[in-house]
Amino acid sequence: MTTRRHFGSVPEILEGQDFESRRALHDAGVHLPTQAGISGSGGQGADSIVLSGGYEDDHDEGDVIVYTGQGGRDLVTGKQVAHQTLTLGNLALALSHQEGFPVRVTRGHQHRSPYSPISGYRYGGLYRVEDHWHELGKSGYRIWRYRLVKQGVDSASAAPKDSAVGRKEVAIQKLLRDTTVARNVKRWHDFTCQVCGVRLEGPAGPYAEAAHIRPLGAPHNGPDTESNMLCLCPNHHVLFDLGGLTLNDDLTVPGSSRSVTTVRQHQIDVNHVKYHRERYGVDADSALV
Amino acid sequence: MTTRRHFGSVPEILEGQDFESRRALHDAGVHLPTQAGISGSGGQGADSIVLSGGYEDDHDEGDVIVYTGQGGRDLVTGKQVAHQTLTLGNLALALSHQEGFPVRVTRGHQHRSPYSPISGYRYGGLYRVEDHWHELGKSGYRIWRYRLVKQGVDSASAAPKDSAVGRKEVAIQKLLRDTTVARNVKRWHDFTCQVCGVRLEGPAGPYAEAAHIRPLGAPHNGPDTESNMLCLCPNHHVLFDLGGLTLNDDLTVPGSSRSVTTVRQHQIDVNHVKYHRERYGVDADSALV
Repeated sequence: MTTRRHFGSVPEILEGQDFESRRALHDAGVHLPTQAGISGSGGQGADSIVLSGGYEDDHDEGDVIVYTGQGGRDLVTGKQVAHQTLTLGNLALALSHQEGFPVRVTRGHQHRSPYSPISGYRYGGLYRVEDHWHELGKSGYRIWRYRLVKQGVDSASAAPKDSAVGRKEVAIQKLLRDTTVARNVKRWHDFTCQVCGVRLEGPAGPYAEAAHIRPLGAPHNGPDTESNMLCLCPNHHVLFDLGGLTLNDDLTVPGSSRSVTTVRQHQIDVNHVKYHRERYGVDADSALV
Repeated sequence: MTTRRHFGSVPEILEGQDFESRRALHDAGVHLPTQAGISGSGGQGADSIVLSGGYEDDHDEGDVIVYTGQGGRDLVTGKQVAHQTLTLGNLALALSHQEGFPVRVTRGHQHRSPYSPISGYRYGGLYRVEDHWHELGKSGYRIWRYRLVKQGVDSASAAPKDSAVGRKEVAIQKLLRDTTVARNVKRWHDFTCQVCGVRLEGPAGPYAEAAHIRPLGAPHNGPDTESNMLCLCPNHHVLFDLGGLTLNDDLTVPGSSRSVTTVRQHQIDVNHVKYHRERYGVDADSALV
């Protein structure tokens, strides 16, 4: 066994605190590796990241960060020259998502954002990984991406900032959605999981979840419509969101003889199914290893 | 079919807006019933509540409210003279919890809290029901209770206010817990559900959830220890939290020949099992009907 990794805040280190160098971040226990942007391992998860402008695809809105995984870059030019794989730090961040581990975020002066310090490094506080997927980056190579949301910020209100509505409106919308569109999907399937046929019986009635196929909010911007939803049990919802379950275009389950159960009223848009499979699936070529 | 109930905010009505009377709340579409504290039905869920000081057990911290269900009171004296049941408005609020519906909250002048208006009624915004259970109220009769958390407020940071730590500290603590105690429990059971034996395979490793038996935070104040946790799949976690699954003191599942799987390292405290069963179970005498 390796030493236990320290997750969460570091005693005496305050949000907004500045550090001169990567060495100083190491000495303070904020981020131990002095080169790598991700501190973590596949078996233990990631405890800390440093944003240092290395990846052209990074995106920083303060409370919400879309971070690019590591690997595939030329050591001299820094350009993306190969696909990234779900290994090492990338796998560690995926595990932090899956387990809900807090991740310390530090911004370097090279990182282009209004939240970066002019020089050195600034500790930005604790974030949680709320989503991860892969896509073709600006370079044309596959990159892994992670959506991080600041601790204490409501996920719903941290949703699409690029839309015309304000934060408060978004939070309200999110719930309004649940009451109509999601309820339709669940009713059509009589609260039965489209993948496994389970129907959970809660004290106030049957329980199922309406899962968005192409996720809502930036950068995916899936629509909030029945055609972008599945009626799933919590187990298959978790697997679907983590990429442990994808669907083929004909709604069969890859590597199995099963298809999802369908009903006449519920028309699923195959473009969303394809979007999800291509970004979240880990059996796609070169995505996993 | 009855008319579709309106969930979410009402156009043109702002948080903090005052209304002269229950009639005015009705006319504005904020809360339709002119007497009942809960607007809702068992099949559709609850869309709105009015806090009007009727129940001595209500509890209001602004962003977090513990609300008492309806029924069992003497119409003349207002005193609790019988058990409350999980029917009508109480069932409606339970369904809003289960479905994640937003609930409009209005405070009346009779409601004793720093957030109540001096006269009339004040609309307090949208809340979500995050927990519901039953207990013996101050009267000695069974009452149903609902923990409501304001929309846009992070659940973790809205946790125990009665402890010595501030809001920020609590949010951090909550996640630190996940990384150590919860991880222990999941490892001991090799990420296998103690109830059904399922082990979900996520791309970054196996996935299970550590469920608190006696909930954390006020008013339950369960400890964050391995002895107060179960390793569950998401399906059984949902059922456990909703009261659709409880355990007997000998760790058998009521109405079934099954027991939860145990391992040597994991000592479960039977007091927590009993606490959960007595508050969340719906087959207990007089709890459901």
